[in-house]
Amino acid sequence: MSRRAPKLARGVALVGAGMSKFGAFADKTSRDLFVEAFAAMAKSVDKGLDTKDIEALYVGNFSSDLFEGQGHIAPIMADWVGLVPRPATRVEDACAASGVALREGIIAVASGLYDIVLVSGTEKMTNLPTERVTDTLAAASDAVYEASCGFTFPALYAAIATAYMAKYGATVEHFMKVAIKNHNNGALNPKAQFNKSIKDLMNARIEKAKQKGEPLPEWRDELDFLKDPRANPVVAWPMRLFDCSPITDGAACLLIVAEDLAKSFSNNPLYIIGTGQGSDHALHEREDLTTIGSARAAAQMAFEMAGVKPEDIQIAEVHDCFTIAEIVATEDIGFFKPGEGYKAAEKGVTARDGAKPINTSGGLKSKGHPVGASGAGQVVEIWTQMRGEAGPRQVPGMDIQLALTHNLGATGGTCTVHIFQRR
Amino acid sequence: MSRRAPKLARGVALVGAGMSKFGAFADKTSRDLFVEAFAAMAKSVDKGLDTKDIEALYVGNFSSDLFEGQGHIAPIMADWVGLVPRPATRVEDACAASGVALREGIIAVASGLYDIVLVSGTEKMTNLPTERVTDTLAAASDAVYEASCGFTFPALYAAIATAYMAKYGATVEHFMKVAIKNHNNGALNPKAQFNKSIKDLMNARIEKAKQKGEPLPEWRDELDFLKDPRANPVVAWPMRLFDCSPITDGAACLLIVAEDLAKSFSNNPLYIIGTGQGSDHALHEREDLTTIGSARAAAQMAFEMAGVKPEDIQIAEVHDCFTIAEIVATEDIGFFKPGEGYKAAEKGVTARDGAKPINTSGGLKSKGHPVGASGAGQVVEIWTQMRGEAGPRQVPGMDIQLALTHNLGATGGTCTVHIFQRR
Repeated sequence: MSRRAPKLARGVALVGAGMSKFGAFADKTSRDLFVEAFAAMAKSVDKGLDTKDIEALYVGNFSSDLFEGQGHIAPIMADWVGLVPRPATRVEDACAASGVALREGIIAVASGLYDIVLVSGTEKMTNLPTERVTDTLAAASDAVYEASCGFTFPALYAAIATAYMAKYGATVEHFMKVAIKNHNNGALNPKAQFNKSIKDLMNARIEKAKQKGEPLPEWRDELDFLKDPRANPVVAWPMRLFDCSPITDGAACLLIVAEDLAKSFSNNPLYIIGTGQGSDHALHEREDLTTIGSARAAAQMAFEMAGVKPEDIQIAEVHDCFTIAEIVATEDIGFFKPGEGYKAAEKGVTARDGAKPINTSGGLKSKGHPVGASGAGQVVEIWTQMRGEAGPRQVPGMDIQLALTHNLGATGGTCTVHIFQRR
Repeated sequence: MSRRAPKLARGVALVGAGMSKFGAFADKTSRDLFVEAFAAMAKSVDKGLDTKDIEALYVGNFSSDLFEGQGHIAPIMADWVGLVPRPATRVEDACAASGVALREGIIAVASGLYDIVLVSGTEKMTNLPTERVTDTLAAASDAVYEASCGFTFPALYAAIATAYMAKYGATVEHFMKVAIKNHNNGALNPKAQFNKSIKDLMNARIEKAKQKGEPLPEWRDELDFLKDPRANPVVAWPMRLFDCSPITDGAACLLIVAEDLAKSFSNNPLYIIGTGQGSDHALHEREDLTTIGSARAAAQMAFEMAGVKPEDIQIAEVHDCFTIAEIVATEDIGFFKPGEGYKAAEKGVTARDGAKPINTSGGLKSKGHPVGASGAGQVVEIWTQMRGEAGPRQVPGMDIQLALTHNLGATGGTCTVHIFQRR
């Protein structure tokens, strides 16, 4: 069939964004995290928000079923922020849940049905022991053909990384460049789970060893530190500890409105000019492991709608559940050619002060990865950076007019891409 | 705030609908059921369907996470019917999952983004032992305040039934009238899990007892049979076995398109002129247990959009997960006044040959209740009846121009209502 250019019946703007602290909170449920994010979002709306004006709610969540024994969470979240009897819909596409929730919210506003919609994501993961979290996440793979054979997510991404190394000559040190960069950014993000640079983590280890009178490891710099299996053990080769995003509790909320209402909520709204979504086969079925079809499809759809090109995008938050995922993402979006992403990371192009800053928030790697909330969390960073409100981690010397988020589900069974414009 | 009348930017039509057999299938997964439903849907499209024309997929599913250890099912379903890399989104609002998926599909077509969308629901439940199914379903209640206190769904609906009996004077015999009616309908539905009338079930029991030389129970008619705790044991008083819908495996698929494309797919399309959705507090928080706020909100929204009234609707499929749920639903929609629903059931108004036939498919009670597929399954019946294709169970002497579906999540945390028109 002939494909139409994707076009929304009316424009949509982002007028508020907020997140809970990301981390491990033994005393909080997903409800508490959601309320915390909702309050932060409401506070971010320049001209104030009467929450009664919200007409519908989309909740991205991977599996509070498995994590908390709680399905059907959308009306509960609606209730906890006073939105009953408004329509409340949970959207699930694994770790892309809240990216897809954003897309559904945009579509709903475009449809003419609503003018003012709350988009959110929430996930509470740390109440389960780590091995059960790993098993729970494995339910996002193809459980019949992948999880049942012993594949967990570090192993699945290890397969991607191995294929990428073989094809393009990348090494584990290249992956560590991504980790170092994202921790440098996360160190400047007060809401990040790990807001410490790897250098600081290394120096803390050295200091601790000194105090104990233990023999000092001979770490000259971060890369040296990360070579040491005491500091950076293998999880699933070539993925080591510092290749992996953490297990995280967190929530994020976004307020989107019809474009013509944007200025009545915000002095500095962002316009969502592109949205794309794609699906892909399960990893075991793919011919090429070094690129993800859903991401290419989503990016193409979003760029086509927005009428801009990858080179026009100034900053982006991409889905770095593992370091290799960030490298592949930057290629699938079209920022770099296939096989060039790791070189860009090595050269500092994607650093906060580089030509194309990626994951200034710290990314999932350092900010944390509460899976169903990560996509909405990415948008919070874009909101903050584009409005010049990122404080010490504000991208230096850049007037950001165009930015992008890339949110992946599992090994890319789902991907969403969104493009934001400041006018 | 002032509420706008809900209005979609463009019209949406239903041009295909099909379901798998509903039942208990030890050798089938939700993938197999989905493919079976997809094939039935494709066959129902009068002018044929090139599946490559489908632009996006919505999958309603309550918890394949808990039932099958499989999250992130939308891209898997897309893959199994050849739709990769199209956007594939799972929607979850408990037992209203595929009613909400339909609404999301409608909204997506209205937004201008897609012209041709697949809406579906799938659930595979019978692989778990019954007590684990009951626990899994309880995750759709408020797990913190209800399931944790020992409430399972029969108990939650028993609370509703008790309150209704106390307020309006209904008896358990009234509830049985609903069960008898729905089994009478299901007996005529070859895709129903229990396609036997209660009279036939009773006579089979009598026959079996005769053959074994056991003393015959003195059952004069169905109501007498259903009084006997050997035939109809209490599950959670006043809910007995025949008040409860079964545990079911099944899937259903719907094809919706932009209104102006309807005739290029179908000789006899249905136009979806109303969609409504609401949320409600968890049951333990409600002031009145005999009515469900989400259902009233959803019905009001759908009627307002459609510009029709409850009395205009000729037939309806409503969410009879328990007999009491059907009675409350017919009141919340506005077919009958509060406290009058059970009398309508008693008088045969809601029978297949009554003035307002309800659940001609057999309803969830007899057709089966694969929770995430039930909402889409309701639409399959409306499609079949409105097109005059229901064979022996076709509503007699009625030219059906307007019909309605009512799909509830859990105890009504979510409800969707849709209104269909034949022109």
